[in-house]
Amino acid sequence: MKKFVNDPKQYVPEMLTGIALANPGTLKYVPEYNLIMRADAPNNDKVTIIQGSGSGHEPAHVMVVGPGMLDGACPGDVFAAPPMDYVYESGKLLASDKGILLLVNNYTGDKMAFEMAAEMLESEGYKVATLFINDDVAVKDSTFTVGRRGVAGNFFVMKACGAKAEQGADLEEVVRVGEKVNSVTRSMGIALTPCTPPAKGEPLFHLADDEMEVGVGIHGEPGRRRDKLGSADEIVDELLEAIVPDLPYNEGDEVALMVNGLGGTPISELYLLYGIAHRKLAERGIKVWRSYVGEYCTSLEMAGASITLVKLDDEIKELLSAPAEIAIRVF
Amino acid sequence: MKKFVNDPKQYVPEMLTGIALANPGTLKYVPEYNLIMRADAPNNDKVTIIQGSGSGHEPAHVMVVGPGMLDGACPGDVFAAPPMDYVYESGKLLASDKGILLLVNNYTGDKMAFEMAAEMLESEGYKVATLFINDDVAVKDSTFTVGRRGVAGNFFVMKACGAKAEQGADLEEVVRVGEKVNSVTRSMGIALTPCTPPAKGEPLFHLADDEMEVGVGIHGEPGRRRDKLGSADEIVDELLEAIVPDLPYNEGDEVALMVNGLGGTPISELYLLYGIAHRKLAERGIKVWRSYVGEYCTSLEMAGASITLVKLDDEIKELLSAPAEIAIRVF
Repeated sequence: MKKFVNDPKQYVPEMLTGIALANPGTLKYVPEYNLIMRADAPNNDKVTIIQGSGSGHEPAHVMVVGPGMLDGACPGDVFAAPPMDYVYESGKLLASDKGILLLVNNYTGDKMAFEMAAEMLESEGYKVATLFINDDVAVKDSTFTVGRRGVAGNFFVMKACGAKAEQGADLEEVVRVGEKVNSVTRSMGIALTPCTPPAKGEPLFHLADDEMEVGVGIHGEPGRRRDKLGSADEIVDELLEAIVPDLPYNEGDEVALMVNGLGGTPISELYLLYGIAHRKLAERGIKVWRSYVGEYCTSLEMAGASITLVKLDDEIKELLSAPAEIAIRVF
Repeated sequence: MKKFVNDPKQYVPEMLTGIALANPGTLKYVPEYNLIMRADAPNNDKVTIIQGSGSGHEPAHVMVVGPGMLDGACPGDVFAAPPMDYVYESGKLLASDKGILLLVNNYTGDKMAFEMAAEMLESEGYKVATLFINDDVAVKDSTFTVGRRGVAGNFFVMKACGAKAEQGADLEEVVRVGEKVNSVTRSMGIALTPCTPPAKGEPLFHLADDEMEVGVGIHGEPGRRRDKLGSADEIVDELLEAIVPDLPYNEGDEVALMVNGLGGTPISELYLLYGIAHRKLAERGIKVWRSYVGEYCTSLEMAGASITLVKLDDEIKELLSAPAEIAIRVF
């Protein structure tokens, strides 16, 4: 295992410590619940938004806490759902008069933890809503999922909900825009290599030197099939042929186009894929309104990429254009 | 070779096409010279800043073109200096009345191309200055270098020069702040894996499963030594012990601290390293004023990281705080 790590069991706490030290004044770290939170939260003038999931998908979600995005993120260990009490305690700590929105990628473990925490919070009089994100078209059910998985498309849901909450909207309105964005967002990914969770110390699966996993999950779950590694053109075709007809995205539609790196793929390759996808969408008469190229939802150091499309209208464009200040800053 | 690529020879043009398509209206691509330029350049009210180097180090430099940073970047092929005429033609195309600043990482091939281009531009009456960046403390001379190499610290020089130029400063003033920042910037990196240039199709070097290359160059050049893979704590100690005494950075100093990923290392590990480095600097009485964690200057998909320190004063802080709008946008 070739990683920058001390004790693998301290991987997540040491990462969270780094995030807090890198953002003094704006972020706080609460070690008891793996919680990274806005230093100025809770704010009773806005709905509180909390996202969970396992660690290992960074920047999702601990690096996207800040104005216009999340109020807090309380991940579990690498690829493990957060314990229910992390979510419950984070909810209590961050609760606002306007209510709490729990955003959850659709995996069985996460769903269970967040639903139980929501019930407990509600029983104590907190106003809570839970929204499940399921943008991955690769498979219907999966190793850790009933129904579709939530992957990099969760960023658009977070962004829309974060922007709406920042405007002071009620919980119902924030949920409405989140559900709307989730309903027009579709993703699929391809892995070129596996990844190694630090505490496991061994790759999650094996791929031959000339193989790729088509439709891979962000925890290394199998996708649609294993195949010989294709060219970049062939791979983009394969992804778009799965994504485009699914909603469907039609001629004349405007979309946001995300090319997300899974952790080990350099940004040069992501822009190469972006150029191909942009061109192939144009050939179908689908217009890219805005590009998102980089790492949004990763799988540790897995080499691979996913494509996400979001069908836009004026409301979604406005929400995606709203300002957001998060830990990741380039310059 | 596991990459998202079509014809390896088209790797750079296809990436540059993607960058331009992802940033319509703000960036332009001139295929003849591998040039990515601001769509609104040249601007006669500001010094023009152009950076080159080989490709394969993205986001450096083709993804940091924009207001407050570069006016253009004209890279060569992967790990190859740009041909002299790319620099010369880019200079002519982007020349402003205020002059042209050519920023160059100190490698023999790049130096030769930029110096020849500068001479030709000067002989035609253009006002040109050339500034060499050499922040890497690992080795004195190297495979491709006489003197120290330029690595991720080049971002701070670009940012300072970009901010100063945007204020309308004269060429001499822009050069002055660039030289000042370069003189207080020091870096060193460690590789855990090699990388594979697309056209070569094979790794540049080999590292055993339990080995790391201490002081690696961003083209896979040997560093100080090859050693058994250490813990994250040991690695940060090793890097700081090389960097801190070199300037030196002293108790009471304020610094910018960058943890730069070399391409294949996930951002979770970079924040883990950041936390350790921040704490170890605090133990030495060195205060981090601002953090930079992510990928700035990479080596394709190499797993590894570098640390950069910049000693600050009020002028440098102001320049680093100035706004910049570049292709890489998280949200």
